[in-house]
Amino acid sequence: MKDVTTNLPTYEDMLAAHERIKPYIHRTPVLTSSYFNELTGAQLFFKCENFQKAGAFKVRGASNAVFGLSDEVAAKGVATHSSGNHALSLSYAAGRRGIPCHVVMPRTAPQAKKDAVRGYGGIITECEPSTTSREAVFAEVHERTGADFVHPYNDPRVIAGQGTCSKELMEQVDGLDSVIAPIGGGGMVSGCCLTLSTLAPEVKIYAAEPEQADDAYRSFKAGHIIADDAPNTIADGLKVPLKENTWHFVSHHVTDILTASEQEIIDAMKLTWQRMKIVMEASCAVPLATILKNPEVFRGKRVGVIITGGNVDLDKLPWMNS
Amino acid sequence: MKDVTTNLPTYEDMLAAHERIKPYIHRTPVLTSSYFNELTGAQLFFKCENFQKAGAFKVRGASNAVFGLSDEVAAKGVATHSSGNHALSLSYAAGRRGIPCHVVMPRTAPQAKKDAVRGYGGIITECEPSTTSREAVFAEVHERTGADFVHPYNDPRVIAGQGTCSKELMEQVDGLDSVIAPIGGGGMVSGCCLTLSTLAPEVKIYAAEPEQADDAYRSFKAGHIIADDAPNTIADGLKVPLKENTWHFVSHHVTDILTASEQEIIDAMKLTWQRMKIVMEASCAVPLATILKNPEVFRGKRVGVIITGGNVDLDKLPWMNS
Repeated sequence: MKDVTTNLPTYEDMLAAHERIKPYIHRTPVLTSSYFNELTGAQLFFKCENFQKAGAFKVRGASNAVFGLSDEVAAKGVATHSSGNHALSLSYAAGRRGIPCHVVMPRTAPQAKKDAVRGYGGIITECEPSTTSREAVFAEVHERTGADFVHPYNDPRVIAGQGTCSKELMEQVDGLDSVIAPIGGGGMVSGCCLTLSTLAPEVKIYAAEPEQADDAYRSFKAGHIIADDAPNTIADGLKVPLKENTWHFVSHHVTDILTASEQEIIDAMKLTWQRMKIVMEASCAVPLATILKNPEVFRGKRVGVIITGGNVDLDKLPWMNS
Repeated sequence: MKDVTTNLPTYEDMLAAHERIKPYIHRTPVLTSSYFNELTGAQLFFKCENFQKAGAFKVRGASNAVFGLSDEVAAKGVATHSSGNHALSLSYAAGRRGIPCHVVMPRTAPQAKKDAVRGYGGIITECEPSTTSREAVFAEVHERTGADFVHPYNDPRVIAGQGTCSKELMEQVDGLDSVIAPIGGGGMVSGCCLTLSTLAPEVKIYAAEPEQADDAYRSFKAGHIIADDAPNTIADGLKVPLKENTWHFVSHHVTDILTASEQEIIDAMKLTWQRMKIVMEASCAVPLATILKNPEVFRGKRVGVIITGGNVDLDKLPWMNS
């Protein structure tokens, strides 16, 4: 695996990414809701990446990595470890380029997720559900195939790709005061930082995190990366820790990190489905939950809210158990 | 109640309706899905009235009725009997005009529906869950208040309002071969007929109906209105029978009525939520279910599909029981 620690993407990388990936992604719509505007006292602009190709913003970074490869490197394919939206997105992008995508997934991952990755053409190698096994199996796949490793969020090509989302948002909505996005590994938030720190440095960037997976919050307050010890949250895309590259952006450009409880996340998720009629993941509800919890921060402001993805198991909706 | 039997709306009524209601409705987006295009072999354009004000296309007709009243008549308010989207929509429109809206609902209607009507400012009078009681209670309310009766679908002002939906669709999508919408009382389908028979008579109009509430299908085949005897379907907005005005449009302008089973409707509903990430009612899935069932009718065609509404009880999703 190549060392990307000091390899930060630039604003120009983000611009190049947008040109590169445009044929393979949707320019997702921005929705508004008079109900939520009245409820929060803010003007909210929801950037709907749940309508994105492969169902999540992750396809932006994955497509930038895949379509930026030379033909020679691309011929050996790409590889990653993920059981979530990055695996789907990388499989989708590789399929569009016609190259192999190797995905290392725990054998215990839900069958539906394995089926979805295979549906996009991904080649799954199963590992045991432990970091040790994942790393060993991934090293073997990487060595055997010579495929290019695309990390789910710490890769500069991925961060540059995610940055295209807030570029579109700024083109779609005038006069935003702030943007808020959920934070897990920090890929989307880093992309916002990358883009807005040059394009619109006056726009404040907030990150929203589950209380039960608040490693980014604690890292932000401490001034250095703190990884969570076995985080447990319904927002399952947000369990991963910050890494060097995403920490760089978060620590330099984020105004604040706000947190919400599991019940607040579930309530905000259900309310969004009810009022906006959109299917979105629990992770996407964390920003709205924190806005409802901290109305004084956002009242009277024009706020972009990133709805990150819509890949939900409709047979296991969280309010069914709450 | 005034007799509207021979009082059909004209194309000019529809145009006037659109100007009248524009400030109070959304011009809803048209979504496409490469997944569904591949699955059906057709090009489908989904007109998303689930994102409409009050969550359904019904607000078009209701707003046209409410905002077309003279100030003198409006002062006494409007009245209807409905436990569904028409009650919500009429309450919303009356609220925007600042006039009373009287709604007769069975006392057995779900509390959530009563709360939603009251949330929009509707004044509920409860009746027993029988036609006799509903008519008696409605007559009393009508007599006492002098409110203007707005029938959920047979009213020409309502049909003219619903016709604005396919006008927008024709402005949003070029070269449609056909339009398909669910049919219950026939308000939306009649609106499509009203608009398209003048604006684009080459566009075929299909209606989609649950097998278990197939009164429109049987009426269409028989050449006269046949009311269903206690229809029972998950598509609960589609249980009502055609009336004189809607029958006029259906019998003159509809190319065919197609039907789908309960399981086909539920499967199409769940698949749409999964792939398009939108929350929509079971009724809205009937068109897609019939397209999947009759691919030869639609293959290679450009087809407008009306997604009629998104007011769903998220605690009782039909696939939970199937």
